[in-house]
Formats: sequence, structure tokens, C-alpha cells
Amino acid sequence: MSKLPHLTTSIFTIMSKMAVDHNAINLSQGFPNFPIDERMADIIMDLAKADVHQYTPMAGYPPLMEKIGVLTLKSYNRVINQNTELLITAGATEAIFAALQALVRSGDEVLILDPSYDCYETPILLSNAKPVRVSLNEDYTPNFERIAQHISHKTRLLILNNPHNPSGKMWQENDFIQLENLLESYPNLLILSDEVYEYIAFENQHISVNTRKKLRDKSIITSSFGKTLHLTGWKIGYVIAPEHLMKEIKKVHQFLVFSVNSLSQAAINLYLDSFEIESVSKLYQSKRDFFANLMKDTPFELLPCDGTYFQVASYKHFSKENDLDFTKRLVTEFGVATIPLSIFYGDGTDLKRIRFCFAKDDETITKAAERLQKL
Amino acid sequence: MSKLPHLTTSIFTIMSKMAVDHNAINLSQGFPNFPIDERMADIIMDLAKADVHQYTPMAGYPPLMEKIGVLTLKSYNRVINQNTELLITAGATEAIFAALQALVRSGDEVLILDPSYDCYETPILLSNAKPVRVSLNEDYTPNFERIAQHISHKTRLLILNNPHNPSGKMWQENDFIQLENLLESYPNLLILSDEVYEYIAFENQHISVNTRKKLRDKSIITSSFGKTLHLTGWKIGYVIAPEHLMKEIKKVHQFLVFSVNSLSQAAINLYLDSFEIESVSKLYQSKRDFFANLMKDTPFELLPCDGTYFQVASYKHFSKENDLDFTKRLVTEFGVATIPLSIFYGDGTDLKRIRFCFAKDDETITKAAERLQKL
Ligand SMILES: CSCCC(=O)C(=O)O
Ligand SMILES: CSCCC(=O)C(=O)O
Repeated sequence: MSKLPHLTTSIFTIMSKMAVDHNAINLSQGFPNFPIDERMADIIMDLAKADVHQYTPMAGYPPLMEKIGVLTLKSYNRVINQNTELLITAGATEAIFAALQALVRSGDEVLILDPSYDCYETPILLSNAKPVRVSLNEDYTPNFERIAQHISHKTRLLILNNPHNPSGKMWQENDFIQLENLLESYPNLLILSDEVYEYIAFENQHISVNTRKKLRDKSIITSSFGKTLHLTGWKIGYVIAPEHLMKEIKKVHQFLVFSVNSLSQAAINLYLDSFEIESVSKLYQSKRDFFANLMKDTPFELLPCDGTYFQVASYKHFSKENDLDFTKRLVTEFGVATIPLSIFYGDGTDLKRIRFCFAKDDETITKAAERLQKL
Repeated sequence: MSKLPHLTTSIFTIMSKMAVDHNAINLSQGFPNFPIDERMADIIMDLAKADVHQYTPMAGYPPLMEKIGVLTLKSYNRVINQNTELLITAGATEAIFAALQALVRSGDEVLILDPSYDCYETPILLSNAKPVRVSLNEDYTPNFERIAQHISHKTRLLILNNPHNPSGKMWQENDFIQLENLLESYPNLLILSDEVYEYIAFENQHISVNTRKKLRDKSIITSSFGKTLHLTGWKIGYVIAPEHLMKEIKKVHQFLVFSVNSLSQAAINLYLDSFEIESVSKLYQSKRDFFANLMKDTPFELLPCDGTYFQVASYKHFSKENDLDFTKRLVTEFGVATIPLSIFYGDGTDLKRIRFCFAKDDETITKAAERLQKL
């Protein structure tokens, strides 16, 4: 009877609950545990009595749409048309749901690159379409031969996530060139590029699909201020897409939420006036390094982390447990909650790796590392 | 190519834009134009620096869920199980979308009672199901014979809206008895009861489907604080449903938005501590009466208004124009934006009636009436 019979409690809910039950440090679900910027708090106080509490227009609060135009001009080095190519959404999750529901038709297939975040499948299934999961290489680079093998005449769309959750991997110039070559054979394939961690990029610069001439006109980009401004609870995200695709996405958004929290949109708009977007990468790079340094005294082997606030670690040389059992033991016996990587694969691929979220204050990171040093 | 080829700009967007273009008073889209309660503004200021900016749990902010439990205890005279029967959503629109997507299957039919608000069709169509529109009587009471004629073995669900937008009509005891009798022949039919104006009810008390023993276990109720607390921009709504239905709705919600604006949920939670829910009906009843009194000096004939903040008016004895043309003339020549009722019918039924929103301050209402008195 259920339309989604396979869905059970998500790993994020399970792990956050186990963290509470075992009084553990929660490095599982991805959210910052430090306070918001004082300046943002001041802006909220200033806005409380302002006229920012009724519906914004369906596509978003116009001043914030302009600010997103400025941001994207900087990251894409081109001007987007805010009226026709931009939509503000209830977080990136709604952005992804609306885009997939608008563009994926009954019988279509959609390629998802595993390991993958868990929100892509449901809107595909609810569209009576088929998710087709293709594994990335073990170093989380895309494997274009494997991708090509999974493309059929039914393939409508390929989902990328860059910077990549859970691995922290970022696509390089060469990956995009290979994708562009591949798409020459499949000119009708669309790209959904989940770039929610676009402003958390370390040694290398993040490359958006929007900067790629050959991809831009067939790409939908989703992002969110929740990650960029450490406000995961606010649920303010956005979609950027060419007009012919955006027209369809707006039709769904209009009846999915109609519009998005007005107070939060107004606050972000004012905050962006004097925000250094580069500070986000700097903040998280120092957290990544702080965590990595402490982890040297544990038996874990850390994989490279190019961006995001997630660190993948391998335990294969000291335990043969599967990822789920290992994380359960870690939370119950050592008091640190993490996410098993196997959960992000459609086929349960188990490489003996887990994911830590390092978007935490120094004290939390230090305490967690101390507990892990007992392993 | 489009999954929703018939959708164009909504009447609310069109009319609000015309209102701006013609410098008109906007009594079209339903939203209050007066400031929020000072106490709510104070709460927002107090919360700005609190720990209310990261993800709430998927089903909602637990303290607010408890408060909703208290509210519903009062209105339903029974205890709902907050863990299994309640979900906080991004406004009632998301609540309706998630419920319909979760429960309506490919090939199903869903009954919509016309005139109807415009958000029901899209989630039905996106589920590959068929909306079946059945007109209410001309006085906006349900016509059970007509409803019965439209039920087939494919009918999955009947959507009610009570108090009713656009008409302001409320279902009475006798309507529910007739519905219960009808459902004895169709025991598998579900009810989606959109009760977003539940706390805006005048001479009669609002009757929720949840108070009806025979309906409760097959009913999904959607509501929103946007209407109740004059915060339409915040987009905080909720769904109440029996556990077996709620389980499915949560599966969709989890991947549709995951969670809902944390700051707004926390603010509403504190605000409800000392809020007199009865004050909402009183406020809008006095606005309804204030508006009706001024409208006596216009040629319009007002229909009865039991609840909501909408007033339907007939112009049939002084103009033969169709509803859309009439509203366009009203906004361009008289400077008052309204909504044509015909737009709410699948078949365009045109009874020479328009809808006014009276959720406005006295000055706005007075000015609008003065302009209409020139007709
Ligand atoms: C929406 S809960 C998950 C948050 C997140 O982005 C993650 O932990 O991967
Ligand atoms: C979401 S815009 C429409 C607001 C409303 O409820 C109405 O005017 O009917």
C-alpha cells in the first residue's frame, strides 16, 4: 500500500538519537554547534518590528534575489537573470525535490553517483521514475566509463554533488572536460548539480557547473544559506537554472510551499551586505586541520578532504566490522557518533570508512578526538 | 514536454502585480497588512542569540509540538499523540503537498469541491492521479448527491476546506452527518480537511473533522500559524493524521524539506504560552463587520461569511461582465484589487461574484470602501 515501502528512519535521526541516549559527542548529522554571528543576531533584533512577516513573492524576497545575483556573479563570473533563472527555496532539500519533480517524468531514469546523500531518491520514485546508482571510484572521483555504461535512452538526468557529501571530494577541471565529452553523445541529458557546500572549499577553488559553457544550459544548481552561514535550521536555499527549466521548477515550487520564510530571507539579505564569503572556507579549513591534527593520535587513516565540513576516515587496518556495526560500537563504547559510509551506497558497498562532521567548536572536536584516541 | 503544461501565472500573482501597477488597494491575495503583535516582536528579539538556529528534528521542534497538542486538545476535545499523529510543515501548502504525494497513487482520483483554492491540483497531477472537481451549491454548502455521482472505484480521497476559502462558508453538524452516511458506502475513501482558517470562525464554532469519531481515522487535517497568528510569511504549518497515514506523510516530508524554520518555530512556541486563541476570531469578526457596514453604501450584495478573512460579494444586479473582466476593471478604474470567484472553478463557473480580503487595517478598509462607493 505504501508508495515508499523501503523507507525507514534515516541514519541521521538514528545516530543523533543514539548520541543523546549514550551521552555521546555528536559528529554524525551535519550541523554546526557554535552560535551564529553576533551581527546576524543584531540584524534579527532590528528586523523584529519591521514589515517582514507576510508572504514574500513566490520566487523569493526581491532584495535577497539581488544579493544572490552578486554572489553568483563572483563565483560564476557571469550575470544570471534573477527574474528568470533564480528561485529561493525552503532549503536545498526543497530545491532538489522541486527540480526533480518538475523535470523527471514517469519512466525516466536518473543517475545518482554513490556514495550519495539520501535526499535524491524519493522525489525520483514519487515521479514514477527509476534511480540508477553508479559508484564513484574508491577515491570518490567520477568514473566516466561506469557512468556511460549506465546511460540508456531513458536517462533524463545525472545528479552531481560538488563539493561532495559524504566524501569532501571536489570535481576538478579534468572531470568536467570528461563530462562534457560524454554529454556530446547524450545531448538531451540534464545535470542536477547539488552545490550546497560551494563556499566551503579548501586548497582548490570550487568549480560550479555554471562556469562551464557547455553544461550551463542543461544544468540545475541547488545551494543553501544553511551551510554557508551556519544556519541549518533556517531552511533558506536556492535553485539556479536556465529559464526553460526554471519555468517548470517554479510551477512545482508554487504549489509545494508557495514562498519561503520572510524574516529569514530579510535577515540574510542584510547580513550579506558586509559578509566576506571567503571567510567560510577559512573557518572550516582551520577546523579540518585542527581535527586532522588531533586524529593523528588515533588509529584512523584520514582521506583527503577538499571541501564540505565532513572528514572521511578509514578503519580497515584495525577492524573488520562493517561500517554500521563499527559506528554503533563507536557511539556506545567510545561516546562519539558518526555516520557509516556504507549507508550512502545503494548496494551497501562497505569500504570500512566512516564520516565525521567537524563543524563543531574546538572543545567538542578536542573531546571527541580524546575519546577516539582510546581506540 | 512540460509535466504541468496548463499552469500559468496564478491569479494571486497577477492581481497583486496589477495592484502595484495601478496604485490600487490590494484586497486580493489573503494576507494581513497590519504589524505583528508587539509581544511576538519581543520574543524574536529575545531569541536572536539563543540556540534556535540549527535543524530541529524532522517532525518538528518538540516544545512547539507539545503546544499544538494543547491547542488541539481544546479544539478537538481529545488528546492527539504528538509523536505519531503530528508533523510541523513549511506552511499548510507543504502539508497538503506532502499528504497528497504520500497517499495518492498513480491512477487514483481525488475529489475537489469547487470553488476551490488553487494548491490542490498540482500534487495530484504530479502523482499521476486525476483531480475530479465537483461544484458546491451556489450557497457553498456541499451537495452530497453530486459528490456521490462523482465517486468511482478509483476515488482515493475527498478534499474539504473548512472554513472555506474563497467563500467563508463553514460546515455544520448536518453536513458532517451526511458525509458520514455517504462514507458508509465508501469505507476506503480518505478525507483531506484543509482547516487553515480553523481559528477564524464567527457566529458558529468551527467543527474539525477530528471531532467526528467516524471520520477521524481516515482524515488528514492541515492548518497553519500563518493565518492564525497573522504571520503568513513565516510558513509554519502542520498536519494531523492517524499514525498509519502520518507514517507515509513523514516519509515525503523528510525528503521534501527535512525540517522547518527553527527560529520561527521557537518564537511561536513561546508566543503560544500566553496567547488567547479566541482573540483571532474576535479580531476578524470586527473587521468583517466594519467592512460590511461600509459596503452598504456600494451596489454590492454581500454573501454570508461564517469564517476566514474573505468576503464574497455579488455584482450580478449591476453588471453583466464576467468575473475576471470585472475584477480587472475594478483594479484599473476604481483602484481596488480583488479576486474573481470564477478562477476557483475547474469549469470556470461564473456567478458574478468576487472575493475581498478584509484582513487589513481600518484605514485600508475604509479607503477601499470609499473607492467602491463610486461604483
Ligand atoms: C538533514 S540531516 C543531514 C544533514 C546533512 O547534510 C548531513 O549530515 O549529511
Ligand atoms: C499563497 S497566496 C494566496 C493566499 C491565500 O490564501 C488566498 O489569497 O487565498
